[in-house]
Amino acid sequence: MSKKNKKKLMSVTALFVPEIRDLINLKNFSEVKEIISKIPPIDIAERWNDFSSKEKMLLFKLLKTRLAVDVFESLPFEEQSFLLDNLGNTEVSQVLNEMSPDDRANLFRDLPPKVIKKFFKLMKKEEVEDVRELMTYEEGIAGAIMTTDYVELRKEITARAAILKLQDTLSFDDDSDISSIYITDVEHKLLGVVELQDLIKAPPDMLIKDIMESTDFIKINEYSPDDEVAQLFKRYDLIDAPVVDENEELIGVITIDDIVDIMEKVATKEIYEVGKMTPGEGKMISYATSTVREIIGRRAGWLVFLVVFDFLTGTVLKTFQDTLSSVVALVFFIPMLLGAGGNAGTQSSITVIRALATGDVGFDNIKTVLRLELMAALLMGLIVGLLAFGRAMLLESDPIIALVVGATMFLIVLLAICTGVSLPFISKKMGLDPAVLAGPITTSVVDIIGLIIYFKVAQTLLPILR
Amino acid sequence: MSKKNKKKLMSVTALFVPEIRDLINLKNFSEVKEIISKIPPIDIAERWNDFSSKEKMLLFKLLKTRLAVDVFESLPFEEQSFLLDNLGNTEVSQVLNEMSPDDRANLFRDLPPKVIKKFFKLMKKEEVEDVRELMTYEEGIAGAIMTTDYVELRKEITARAAILKLQDTLSFDDDSDISSIYITDVEHKLLGVVELQDLIKAPPDMLIKDIMESTDFIKINEYSPDDEVAQLFKRYDLIDAPVVDENEELIGVITIDDIVDIMEKVATKEIYEVGKMTPGEGKMISYATSTVREIIGRRAGWLVFLVVFDFLTGTVLKTFQDTLSSVVALVFFIPMLLGAGGNAGTQSSITVIRALATGDVGFDNIKTVLRLELMAALLMGLIVGLLAFGRAMLLESDPIIALVVGATMFLIVLLAICTGVSLPFISKKMGLDPAVLAGPITTSVVDIIGLIIYFKVAQTLLPILR
Repeated sequence: MSKKNKKKLMSVTALFVPEIRDLINLKNFSEVKEIISKIPPIDIAERWNDFSSKEKMLLFKLLKTRLAVDVFESLPFEEQSFLLDNLGNTEVSQVLNEMSPDDRANLFRDLPPKVIKKFFKLMKKEEVEDVRELMTYEEGIAGAIMTTDYVELRKEITARAAILKLQDTLSFDDDSDISSIYITDVEHKLLGVVELQDLIKAPPDMLIKDIMESTDFIKINEYSPDDEVAQLFKRYDLIDAPVVDENEELIGVITIDDIVDIMEKVATKEIYEVGKMTPGEGKMISYATSTVREIIGRRAGWLVFLVVFDFLTGTVLKTFQDTLSSVVALVFFIPMLLGAGGNAGTQSSITVIRALATGDVGFDNIKTVLRLELMAALLMGLIVGLLAFGRAMLLESDPIIALVVGATMFLIVLLAICTGVSLPFISKKMGLDPAVLAGPITTSVVDIIGLIIYFKVAQTLLPILR
Repeated sequence: MSKKNKKKLMSVTALFVPEIRDLINLKNFSEVKEIISKIPPIDIAERWNDFSSKEKMLLFKLLKTRLAVDVFESLPFEEQSFLLDNLGNTEVSQVLNEMSPDDRANLFRDLPPKVIKKFFKLMKKEEVEDVRELMTYEEGIAGAIMTTDYVELRKEITARAAILKLQDTLSFDDDSDISSIYITDVEHKLLGVVELQDLIKAPPDMLIKDIMESTDFIKINEYSPDDEVAQLFKRYDLIDAPVVDENEELIGVITIDDIVDIMEKVATKEIYEVGKMTPGEGKMISYATSTVREIIGRRAGWLVFLVVFDFLTGTVLKTFQDTLSSVVALVFFIPMLLGAGGNAGTQSSITVIRALATGDVGFDNIKTVLRLELMAALLMGLIVGLLAFGRAMLLESDPIIALVVGATMFLIVLLAICTGVSLPFISKKMGLDPAVLAGPITTSVVDIIGLIIYFKVAQTLLPILR
């Protein structure tokens, strides 16, 4: 597609920051209020640190409650703490009572017990109960991303009655999400779901039980891992999904916005693992908040481990010292051979790792993968082997050395692809994350075995070495 | 988190396939109808090839219209063609008229002109017009993923009137998505958006113009690249967003389900590029549908290119032939040194590539990245350098050789990290995808310069070589 045709989306600039600071200096607060009410909360949160502490407090108080809570939810923990420490009790109580339950539980997980106790005193009883329950879920499972802000209806009422009930119960500034309404029985057991838009479309006298759809395929156990929840959302094109406990009782709802974040986190984790790094659990990785210590923490472990692993290549080479001294020309091709092996192995391992992650491949269709990869390995080995033969002829003009290099290249590519394909499956079979082990180790394994192959082939083919 | 605590989500098994086949054999069609009406369309589509051609036709006809269309939309192109070729005109017309506009335009893009002409004759005039317009958008831009199935309202009516109007216009089986309703003026210009749930929550006499929210930050130009659209959805936690043309007229709506697919595609593309492969534009990559030719097509190009690139390592080594012959022990450490360089380079380049992709890093905060990476490079170079020194002492017991190896390791890690950080930025500056160039080339660049460094350091420090 031609680049010209594509139009950049408008990106939000930080232009509003100087304008607001000027207006604050001029004490024109009503104008500030007007401007910030039109900026999306996430954009305000992103520019938060451009303001002084004093300006932050002022801005926060000028925001309408709903927007203030939204901005608060988008701020990093340190800024949230700062605000809670400096706002009056009424404001703190308002923010804490109105925050969305999942974000709130997240905040409380990081607060010291003393502060939690203080805040609990400022909150409504039922909200305290809600935080207490949600805090029991560890990061990485469904319970930790669900919200308890949802609406339930019974199955025996009509569409018209349902709409009237919703209109009676909810005020305009209520921020419960009612785009999906969950249907439960008296014991809170989940029976089905009704989309709000289907309530509108349905004939007024139609009963909920005839409108509702089954949740059999989409209900989520509270302890399901969040990456599997994301797969479920993707598979069934969900906007939200109910979370149930072991008694099938509805205890929460997961919405797509949290899933989008999880998908991004999972992709980052996988890319980091493929890139021989330890991304760490849960946290979003960002340069903006990273320290040198964290960067080294993510990388040094693997780097050191792989160097130690590669100690073996030295041992292999020393073993073949005599061969090396006799035919120094063999050295010339070592980087090219190992480089190609590493690249071919990485290509395969990454394809398999990705396919395992997206659920495209499992142990049931492992045969298809092996067949495809083996065929590809043979063909690519042939291509690159011929190339290596040509290169060796060009550099050394010795057909036997060229043959050694070409044959080794073929074998190394074959070895690399087989290693690259098997390691992810083996890791997964061992209950490990396929990317953690397979990504980094493939290259080193190919280095070591590849060198042995090289010298064995040389010893077999070169007359001088026999 | 303990593994025990996590519960696997129920995965849909293929158990329904044998059951349905048995029932078909017994000609118990009403039971088949009952069963398939309860299976999610995507699950039926996934098992489609477990049925014979005859069974497929039968099953399709037993599905209720809405479900049949959903199954149809989830099938690969070949299966869609097969059905369209074998269904009667009435059924073809039904399917084509009721498909969601974006999926339908996708299908038509792949059909031969002759077939398109035939199908157009079976479709309603306005649907033909719709396909014609959507087909003009190439894959990869907003227009190609938008649907034209949305609902518009005017801003001067009340919430009550709006709800009544929706109820009057829409029948229960209408599948227009009305969770967001777009507000336009007489010229179709976009004014704002109202969530259906806000219509329910609002006081009945409130005017739409007072309920609606601004679309200034979320409206999308028809030619915006789809990965940027995905970023926008993520940033503002959107469920859907309006698409406008250059005159600000509303021409379509993009929904989150398409965005989820794009996010997955973008992540796969990035991982493939990092893994030195050419993923190809647009298409989802899957082993299930890949041929050996496609696998080789994605990989051989880079593999061959990098082998040719690595030809240079041979030239470098031949240049230093005399040094190599004098101190064969230098060879022992080449794979370890180049391996560590490759790994360190890959770690940095992948971190930068990911950060550029998520928008965490840009040219404005390049200084922070450089500072962090340089500090990390110095420290990691030191650690791995000491390790290499130790290894060389152990293998060769020659402190000067060990010093050469240790110093080279330090320099190579430094070089690798600098290369890994700069190449993605340079690629991006050149208007290229950072992952395309930077991922694969980093290792090869480090190989070549690394070898030169190694021998230069050796020639400087080893008395025998002076």
